[in-house]
Amino acid sequence: MIYLDGELVAPERARIDPRDRGLLLGDGLFETMRARAGRVSLVERHLARLRHGAATLGIPVPLDDDGIARALAEVLQANRLDDAALRLTLTRGPGPRGLAPPADPRPTLMIASAPPPPPKPPARARIVSIRRNEHSPLAGIKSLGHLDNVLAEREAGEDEALLLNSRGRLCEAAAANLFLVVGGVAHTPPVADGALPGVIRSVLLEPGAVETTLLPADLAVASEAFLTNSLIGVRPLIEVDGRRIGDGQPGPLTRTLAERAAQA
Amino acid sequence: MIYLDGELVAPERARIDPRDRGLLLGDGLFETMRARAGRVSLVERHLARLRHGAATLGIPVPLDDDGIARALAEVLQANRLDDAALRLTLTRGPGPRGLAPPADPRPTLMIASAPPPPPKPPARARIVSIRRNEHSPLAGIKSLGHLDNVLAEREAGEDEALLLNSRGRLCEAAAANLFLVVGGVAHTPPVADGALPGVIRSVLLEPGAVETTLLPADLAVASEAFLTNSLIGVRPLIEVDGRRIGDGQPGPLTRTLAERAAQA
Repeated sequence: MIYLDGELVAPERARIDPRDRGLLLGDGLFETMRARAGRVSLVERHLARLRHGAATLGIPVPLDDDGIARALAEVLQANRLDDAALRLTLTRGPGPRGLAPPADPRPTLMIASAPPPPPKPPARARIVSIRRNEHSPLAGIKSLGHLDNVLAEREAGEDEALLLNSRGRLCEAAAANLFLVVGGVAHTPPVADGALPGVIRSVLLEPGAVETTLLPADLAVASEAFLTNSLIGVRPLIEVDGRRIGDGQPGPLTRTLAERAAQA
Repeated sequence: MIYLDGELVAPERARIDPRDRGLLLGDGLFETMRARAGRVSLVERHLARLRHGAATLGIPVPLDDDGIARALAEVLQANRLDDAALRLTLTRGPGPRGLAPPADPRPTLMIASAPPPPPKPPARARIVSIRRNEHSPLAGIKSLGHLDNVLAEREAGEDEALLLNSRGRLCEAAAANLFLVVGGVAHTPPVADGALPGVIRSVLLEPGAVETTLLPADLAVASEAFLTNSLIGVRPLIEVDGRRIGDGQPGPLTRTLAERAAQA
């Protein structure tokens, strides 16, 4: 069962309007959240990011935070899931032809659930040819246009995809933030370099990890590296482009921060 | 009435699956076409571009060109439109959670129509802060992720939006290609600079106009400028950022090429 505009409905029966601007133009946002023991982890941060993105795009959010929290809980309950991956999608809703938004938008709000992804072994990654556009106002928000990420993941094959920005700086993975441990401190690319302000990333930044512009050459001096997102938490990254990070094993700071992320 | 996966159906009753990757990830393409006197202008070029984009993304196109042409004609007929704006949307169809495409995609093919936009007066434009990512494989294809364009248009207000690429070169307008007339020749930014290979653009390029890297400084030396897309054809551009192009009037080469586009 999914939540769609105020109702719980089977996905096979749920109807998205073919004029929905989320479909036609990528005019919308999403959040991917993790539920554990029936509780949505860090839901306040997810909803704050959603509202920041919606304000940037000028999309009204049809529910207050309590209303969204209730809808998330209803989806978990209806699907008898305690542990789950939750996806919230907000679009500007249907509109007429063309780029200009309708004057009086009727946004679409949808929440779907799935069993959580299984734990993954330490990651190997590859720097792909696709680059983040750090000049786009979309770089900092989680908008629906994720085709670059789809292509990046395809290019990386079995590996994870690492993306540079237009100036050749390290940016993030296709669906995760990147951290490098250098000098005993965890560094992650700043939002200004095109990184998405990830929720687990935000937990690790206060305090402890720091935002630092990172170059591909920094991979060679990092003693540890890891990827973060809301579904995997912290995942060690042990190899990039066939070269080991540090000694090629998950490191001690990575383990410490993984525990911190799991308790957040 | 719209065409959706083999059927003509009222938009109010048409159903897009909430798991459609076009909606969830912008994983798809579109084409905007102009019909005149019941005939779709330059349909072969539109379908060739669609197929090129679909091949780039690995999305199977569910109909051959004759089948798509028939579907376009059915939509025109069902809506009693001879003159129309047609929008074809192709997505990878529904998929499970995550970026990885389903092994056996069931693509969504949709065609909608609207009355053609009214003729517009000569354009004024503004260079906006949003930039095209010429490094993206998506720069050359007409993918669903058009939120950058929506924001660019919003930033430009009453003006048209001109976008630079990440290196500060002129690229295109939010929904049109850009041409500058310099030395009696019409120049348009190359696809390598992030320009979409527009269909009217392609008509003007063979032969006559040429692909040239253009900088904002070239606006000051251009004697004429114009914008092209499939709905407007050729539209004179007479002012950018408050500065007149040439004498601020539609120029003779612009008029000649407008006629050529209208006859294509």
